[in-house]
Amino acid sequence: MSAASEKIRISEIFGPTIQGEGMLIGQPTVFVRTGGCDYRCSWCDTLHAVDSEYRHNWLAMETETIWGQVRYLSGDVPLTVSLSGGNPAIQPLGNLIRRGKQDGYRFAIETQGSVARDWFADLDFLVLSPKPPSSGMETDWDILTDCLKAATSCSSGGPRIGLKFVVFDDADYAFAKDAAARFPDLPVYLQPGNHTPPPPDDDDARIDLDGVMDRMLWLVDKVMADRWFAATVLPQLHVLLWGNKRGV
Amino acid sequence: MSAASEKIRISEIFGPTIQGEGMLIGQPTVFVRTGGCDYRCSWCDTLHAVDSEYRHNWLAMETETIWGQVRYLSGDVPLTVSLSGGNPAIQPLGNLIRRGKQDGYRFAIETQGSVARDWFADLDFLVLSPKPPSSGMETDWDILTDCLKAATSCSSGGPRIGLKFVVFDDADYAFAKDAAARFPDLPVYLQPGNHTPPPPDDDDARIDLDGVMDRMLWLVDKVMADRWFAATVLPQLHVLLWGNKRGV
Ligand code: SF4
Ligand code: SF4
Repeated sequence: MSAASEKIRISEIFGPTIQGEGMLIGQPTVFVRTGGCDYRCSWCDTLHAVDSEYRHNWLAMETETIWGQVRYLSGDVPLTVSLSGGNPAIQPLGNLIRRGKQDGYRFAIETQGSVARDWFADLDFLVLSPKPPSSGMETDWDILTDCLKAATSCSSGGPRIGLKFVVFDDADYAFAKDAAARFPDLPVYLQPGNHTPPPPDDDDARIDLDGVMDRMLWLVDKVMADRWFAATVLPQLHVLLWGNKRGV
Repeated sequence: MSAASEKIRISEIFGPTIQGEGMLIGQPTVFVRTGGCDYRCSWCDTLHAVDSEYRHNWLAMETETIWGQVRYLSGDVPLTVSLSGGNPAIQPLGNLIRRGKQDGYRFAIETQGSVARDWFADLDFLVLSPKPPSSGMETDWDILTDCLKAATSCSSGGPRIGLKFVVFDDADYAFAKDAAARFPDLPVYLQPGNHTPPPPDDDDARIDLDGVMDRMLWLVDKVMADRWFAATVLPQLHVLLWGNKRGV
């Protein structure tokens, strides 16, 4: 298939709104959420972009159409585009990134690091989010290392890279700590899990906000007691502000 | 007075906890809060470190004593020390910063930018937070510019610098936008105001959390509608997590 006719599976495009978590927290962004994931985390909070039961809501879109939508939403004012999913790394996003950078936009991606792409080198921000034991998934550290190699393969810069870990319990915390030790040069972002993720077909479902807050306090206490001062601990701001509502 | 006997007025030293706002949000820090301020903002949320009525709670401490306390709290593991107040710039903090950096600690300060100090150049992070109209205070832009000059006077680096604005209303927003335009190279952090700041002698007073959330949503909407994509919009995380409680 030629690059021009290459389609990208899109679950939703929305924004501008603020990035709710991690390295770019608080920064205005348009989200391009792709459909499909090679993982099935037990607590996935974007099942509507993962489970094939919802694939009738996904659109196979051309790069130019997606790009037109991002420009429309942002009023042609450059900002950071957040590529998320599902796992955006299983989609052919290289042309979209190159297209958008011509117009002065920046690109961030968040992926679990299970698929390496050469276009990682064209990103401005790469967040690798290996999934902890509570997800039920296993990380292939060789592939995660390939992701880092791909991102840094270009001599002229490459993205700012960070590791992000969702932490539900002590085992997840230990996992994050081990993983961080494997990559001592990368900044680490810890995030308490949302144990009441949205059902995929009810984006107004209530979350247990007190429970989310309690997990955040637990995580802060743990990191401080442990004196893991290189870690940054952040909640999912969009969950605090909008609950599980989608498209904000 | 010699440097050795120079005293610093301290309101409180606490942590480690996470930085709740701005450039270093989510990062572990020990707070050194100094006593006294040259401003009297209408909505000051640290009156216990400002109003001379509370100065009997402040201690005149020597640099070595303060430093011992920071080392104790952090278990001798280097982290970022946040110098706050009141206005920390009216205290002689240069020796404390130099002392701490010998031990590998980093230093951040937040000040309104009404007093410039040559030791700003020794900081790792400088947050200048000019006060908007709702505060009832007026900014002297020449002095704020002097603060920037002081911070960048040293050829070897100097701190990362950011502007932070508390926004309560449209007039505050317009002020932030004008001020940001004066310093186009500086990153800008916008923060909704806490309209229910703690009374200085009741650190368990309830805040209006819904009201704080509403102001955050209002601010996000405003920034997005305005397409001010260079701005970062962040709440006061510690207020969301701990309300007005002190020392966390
Ligand atoms: S990797 Fe992400 S999108 Fe995929 S199943 Fe896990 S949480 Fe969901
Ligand atoms: S400058 Fe800060 S500490 Fe001083 S009165 Fe204003 S809000 Fe309070």
